[in-house]
Amino acid sequence: MTVASIIGGGVIGGGWAARFLLNGWDVRVFDPDPEAERKIGEVLANARRSLPGLSDAPLPPEGQMTFHADMAEAVQGAAWIQESVPENLGLKHKILAQIQAVCDAGAVIGSSTSGFKPSQLQEGSNAPGQIVVTHPFNPVYLLPLIELVPSPANEAGFVEKAAEVLRSIGCYPLHVRAEIDAHIADRFLEAVWREALWLVKDGIATTEEIDNAIRYGFGIRWAQMGLFETYRVAGGEAGMKHFMAQFGPCLQWPWTKLTDVPEFTDELVDLIAGQSDEQSGAYSIRELERIRDNNLVAMMRALKAQDWGAGAILKGHDARLKAGTELVATAADLTEPRPVLTCARAVPLDWTDYNGHMTESRYLDAFAQSTDRFMELIGCDAAYIAAGGSYFTAETHIRHIDEVHAGARIEVRTQMLQGAGKKLHLFHSMYEGARLLATGESFLLHVDLTTRRSCEPGPQVLEGLALMRAAHGALPYPEGAGAAIRRP
Amino acid sequence: MTVASIIGGGVIGGGWAARFLLNGWDVRVFDPDPEAERKIGEVLANARRSLPGLSDAPLPPEGQMTFHADMAEAVQGAAWIQESVPENLGLKHKILAQIQAVCDAGAVIGSSTSGFKPSQLQEGSNAPGQIVVTHPFNPVYLLPLIELVPSPANEAGFVEKAAEVLRSIGCYPLHVRAEIDAHIADRFLEAVWREALWLVKDGIATTEEIDNAIRYGFGIRWAQMGLFETYRVAGGEAGMKHFMAQFGPCLQWPWTKLTDVPEFTDELVDLIAGQSDEQSGAYSIRELERIRDNNLVAMMRALKAQDWGAGAILKGHDARLKAGTELVATAADLTEPRPVLTCARAVPLDWTDYNGHMTESRYLDAFAQSTDRFMELIGCDAAYIAAGGSYFTAETHIRHIDEVHAGARIEVRTQMLQGAGKKLHLFHSMYEGARLLATGESFLLHVDLTTRRSCEPGPQVLEGLALMRAAHGALPYPEGAGAAIRRP
Repeated sequence: MTVASIIGGGVIGGGWAARFLLNGWDVRVFDPDPEAERKIGEVLANARRSLPGLSDAPLPPEGQMTFHADMAEAVQGAAWIQESVPENLGLKHKILAQIQAVCDAGAVIGSSTSGFKPSQLQEGSNAPGQIVVTHPFNPVYLLPLIELVPSPANEAGFVEKAAEVLRSIGCYPLHVRAEIDAHIADRFLEAVWREALWLVKDGIATTEEIDNAIRYGFGIRWAQMGLFETYRVAGGEAGMKHFMAQFGPCLQWPWTKLTDVPEFTDELVDLIAGQSDEQSGAYSIRELERIRDNNLVAMMRALKAQDWGAGAILKGHDARLKAGTELVATAADLTEPRPVLTCARAVPLDWTDYNGHMTESRYLDAFAQSTDRFMELIGCDAAYIAAGGSYFTAETHIRHIDEVHAGARIEVRTQMLQGAGKKLHLFHSMYEGARLLATGESFLLHVDLTTRRSCEPGPQVLEGLALMRAAHGALPYPEGAGAAIRRP
Repeated sequence: MTVASIIGGGVIGGGWAARFLLNGWDVRVFDPDPEAERKIGEVLANARRSLPGLSDAPLPPEGQMTFHADMAEAVQGAAWIQESVPENLGLKHKILAQIQAVCDAGAVIGSSTSGFKPSQLQEGSNAPGQIVVTHPFNPVYLLPLIELVPSPANEAGFVEKAAEVLRSIGCYPLHVRAEIDAHIADRFLEAVWREALWLVKDGIATTEEIDNAIRYGFGIRWAQMGLFETYRVAGGEAGMKHFMAQFGPCLQWPWTKLTDVPEFTDELVDLIAGQSDEQSGAYSIRELERIRDNNLVAMMRALKAQDWGAGAILKGHDARLKAGTELVATAADLTEPRPVLTCARAVPLDWTDYNGHMTESRYLDAFAQSTDRFMELIGCDAAYIAAGGSYFTAETHIRHIDEVHAGARIEVRTQMLQGAGKKLHLFHSMYEGARLLATGESFLLHVDLTTRRSCEPGPQVLEGLALMRAAHGALPYPEGAGAAIRRP
């Protein structure tokens, strides 16, 4: 088991702890705050309900989390050490020295700093090449972006090793090739924050109006294409140069108050805090966190179905998880006389209703995922489908037997009842542990994707079907199969 | 039929035209560009595949679109006139004068300007109170935000009337209470654009790295909560004041290059256009538009299921559409001896696979929507459910008969086969026009939501069931009902 050390809890450190833990790492926490265990526990509870279901593959089993008052105990043997203490360079230097006095020479020390350059953090260190900036975004357990900022003291191999660890826990390491204060993303956040303060101070807009101006318009655009690709599309057929010719000159206009910094008076703070209370005060911070996580999961999974933006990151991570796991059926299962494990996953937040129960139609989503996996096993895989053959579902029968909540780990086992010629008849059983949640019976026909008509499968699939018939032919006909909703 | 005039086609004018048209308005276009009809046609094609399915209720029938070379012909009798000509104050003054010379005195003249203040547009007009800024965001047919900016010359009643029209076509009018150059949203876009130009020019990051820094991190956050609510959550239990105390001082740091404007040399333009080609050049602009629309629809509908942000706007618009339509069953249907219309909607983009066909599990989504509507009709409505009673699906049988594409208008008609005591047995038939696409048979049990066990319904629902039995009792048992997937 690989070990990550989390130095400094809080929202950011807790988010890192949750991401490592749920991706199968053991996590050791060092934080003098007596409340650290409670605070990290709360972040972890949020992560447990939202992170596993982002994936359509099973995460590895959770690691162990332990809390340590002794730095050596916390970091010795750790492959990754994440520093998330407050933004104070003196404090960071002190903590980094304490870490480096006892940690393994091969460990990566990542700093969550949003403002300092890695070369600043490395000042005075005997092993500066071990320290790098890995700046995350809150909530760390959901958002994939990590700004990975090395200095010239970090070797290329070290940077690639750090990037690989980050990818292995589902992150997107953005290698920032030049050190600057605040890296990349926070420079934008800073520019927007500054402008927003002026708008509120000058009484042009309230905090709520500003949030609406963002989230009902360009915020949704940026969530999928960012700034330049969005403008490329806006420029239309005439292209990016045309867009710049149109938009560029506006830079000269007096459209922003960027040259001044509003004075940070008590009055301005009260104005903004008061407006924020009016806007969001009906919800506690815990409620807002859950609402935010529900929204992020739903949007990121929506993007995943499109294989785009943050959703493409999720999809890549799933492929990695599937390759690394033995939980789901392999070709060997073609010969075993037992139902095949065709789906192992967590129930995602966007599959549940307002009560947190899995929604009716999502049972069919899981069964459809099982059918896809079964098809793959018998040889009807992506290459076969690209060549023009596939199966279409003609008929489905679902029995809802018990309820299940978001975050629960479910498994589907599939028995082939018929698989010959054009016909494929499957019986799926969905479990949470030993508890049967639902059964799904599917009758499919093999089709030619060009004519959209049924036809015999190709030799590869006929062979897969024959193997599966040999394996499942003697299994008892399952209880509930062949049932109809009776006429009263 | 209400009439909207679109003065100036292009991407923005075309987007307005599509939004009005698909929301049932007749649209008259005035644009001297000989390519206007083709360009608007392309925007409209994009809108037709993406906009109707955003809604879970049917849109009204499409209006008529006509093209006019004569200004009087284009604007006389129009209730809304939208000006989207290039950002040149002299040109806008000229066009507004032409419009006002012939338009109705009661018409709203909205300008799509992103930079000019309404009082600037109103200069020299005899009827300044008729002109207002209504600044949209591209794609206009999908993003709900419209900055509605009046000057002191616009009366409150006029502004409210304009807002009501915008809401009626699914927009969110953000009433900007003080005129400033570039309103609100574009001040942020300008700040970010300026900072981005520096980062590219200084070689810190490429256009693609900047887009990734946005869309894998804060972009997704902003799509749902904007800036202030996001920071409120980040501040945690200590609240907004604490957050500001932490983050505020950073404003003094040299984190942005906001005081300078990079010189707009050919070199900078080439650098950015070249990087953009590398990032997105594999796709044509048309392809990028479709990808963008798929993403926006999927994310906005994901937010709609959470009833949050732009999704809450969609939900409100659905309620408005449902109230204004007679397409879906009303209480009168309780007594008619025919299957009840329980669902009328377009197939949304996020219900389709990569080939554009509706995905297996989404048939059940539509049938579940029909079941919900049927429950409502027999008295199991939101208030009844809030009081603790509801129906749970125990069993479902689906027959897939024909395929359907994104954007298609589908209808579901529902026959009650049994409705007595705890039991409810429904048979749904899904059509596109006269073409039968699928049938869905559902067996439900009435439950107590506290104990999660089955029980008799309350008197209100028993009464609804009795009425429906009287209406549907003599209907023939439908073909396909009671079927099972047979044992081979």
